[in-house]
Amino acid sequence: MGVTILPSESTFVAETTFRIRYAETDSMRIVHHKNYIVFFEEGRSNYARERGRPYSDFEKAGYYLIVAEIQARYHKPAHYEQEITVRTWLEAIQSRGLTFGYEIVDAASRETLVTGQTRHICVTQDGQVARMPDMWLDWAKS
Amino acid sequence: MGVTILPSESTFVAETTFRIRYAETDSMRIVHHKNYIVFFEEGRSNYARERGRPYSDFEKAGYYLIVAEIQARYHKPAHYEQEITVRTWLEAIQSRGLTFGYEIVDAASRETLVTGQTRHICVTQDGQVARMPDMWLDWAKS
Amino acid sequence: MGVTILPSESTFVAETTFRIRYAETDSMRIVHHKNYIVFFEEGRSNYARERGRPYSDFEKAGYYLIVAEIQARYHKPAHYEQEITVRTWLEAIQSRGLTFGYEIVDAASRETLVTGQTRHICVTQDGQVARMPDMWLDWAKS
Amino acid sequence: MGVTILPSESTFVAETTFRIRYAETDSMRIVHHKNYIVFFEEGRSNYARERGRPYSDFEKAGYYLIVAEIQARYHKPAHYEQEITVRTWLEAIQSRGLTFGYEIVDAASRETLVTGQTRHICVTQDGQVARMPDMWLDWAKS
Repeated sequence: MGVTILPSESTFVAETTFRIRYAETDSMRIVHHKNYIVFFEEGRSNYARERGRPYSDFEKAGYYLIVAEIQARYHKPAHYEQEITVRTWLEAIQSRGLTFGYEIVDAASRETLVTGQTRHICVTQDGQVARMPDMWLDWAKS
Repeated sequence: MGVTILPSESTFVAETTFRIRYAETDSMRIVHHKNYIVFFEEGRSNYARERGRPYSDFEKAGYYLIVAEIQARYHKPAHYEQEITVRTWLEAIQSRGLTFGYEIVDAASRETLVTGQTRHICVTQDGQVARMPDMWLDWAKS
Repeated sequence: MGVTILPSESTFVAETTFRIRYAETDSMRIVHHKNYIVFFEEGRSNYARERGRPYSDFEKAGYYLIVAEIQARYHKPAHYEQEITVRTWLEAIQSRGLTFGYEIVDAASRETLVTGQTRHICVTQDGQVARMPDMWLDWAKS
Repeated sequence: MGVTILPSESTFVAETTFRIRYAETDSMRIVHHKNYIVFFEEGRSNYARERGRPYSDFEKAGYYLIVAEIQARYHKPAHYEQEITVRTWLEAIQSRGLTFGYEIVDAASRETLVTGQTRHICVTQDGQVARMPDMWLDWAKS
């Protein structure tokens, strides 16, 4: 992980748009930086739903995709009631995990607010690192 | 539940003291009101630990104490870095649940910031309402 | 405040629908109870926007509507990815504050998950209790 | 920013120890990854207090230290009620910002749970990037 690279034109990018909640602001009157980590996660959830495999199905199959690493770069702050769009794509597929890329933009102007990456490892419900089930590897690669 | 009544002198009151985190503030430059609900919870956790039975033991025994009702009254806002003390006591014991009372005060001046109550119901891990295990009822009554 | 009373048929009720985020769950594998307090707030924000006066305008005019009291009753837990609808209405108007009522329901089945009330007091930006500006009182009453 | 390097022996490392709250867990029954970002922030706050200059003084002087970049590596999950220690040190000083390093360990075993870095930029309260006040640069370098 390192510098965020925006996705190539052939990469599928899922988008979800929502408004900033008051509870997500802090004393600087901007969105507290921890919340973009939650927005990345919501971007992943939306990505999986848009591609037909909700993450809850992954857990029902007996696996978790735990977070091994995150990186975020803050370009411009977001404010209460602002509409933002989280753009999410798959950056890398390994047999034991996935890496996602993100760009959060203002929904109207498309100005970049935050970029980032998260790397995930597949574990079984008792916490052992595991190979991703073929069904999910095939899904990720398709 | 209704008006918060402070505990009688014979009631055991557990106290825990900690500082407000920056992430707990909002655009009004005060602690966001949702966080006191978390402070109540931390007060309960501390109460159980102080009385020798961590809540994690309750879950290990196969039960959850879910929240059925909360009530909070906000008297005075808390700010970043302020030291606060959460005072917690048991208000009522039923065979299927417990009610806790809370008073959050400034750690130094003892001025009241927030008061509240939470009512809890005992459920098994598959979500069925259950009688509290005798061991825990005895503990609560002792 | 006390028992939640659902709004009469003539009361304007604003509705907003969204999905539960993973970060909003806890070890019980249900939505942590603090998050419904945030959903109430988002219900209020949506209510004000739907009625043409975003809460951010209220702050721009030099006022805050701080939370004086909250009450919530938890009927049924919500889960990750569930779509919920927050229904919000105005319950009482005082010269120095407002009381809102809420019902959170499953977006599909309309089953009640949580009900509640929040009472608010108008303060100036230096924290003094104040009469609500006429423009806002008129808006609330209209 | 990149791989986290632990501090040299001559580097001042501030430590703060606290317990995991129930509200910080998620459906995987571990601490949700966003919370370590808050623990890093609390580590910074504690670092500044231990070195005699609370961050609130920085804001009172008319400045903010906004977050420009974060990086976190998750080695081992933490659980409800676990006592953790956040170790914080200054990694780099620029005229317009600071970089902090972190290691979160189990308070008893000292096993590494999470490592990370955050890079900050000094801005004035109207959002303009600014040189850090000399008083603070001197403090950071001393």
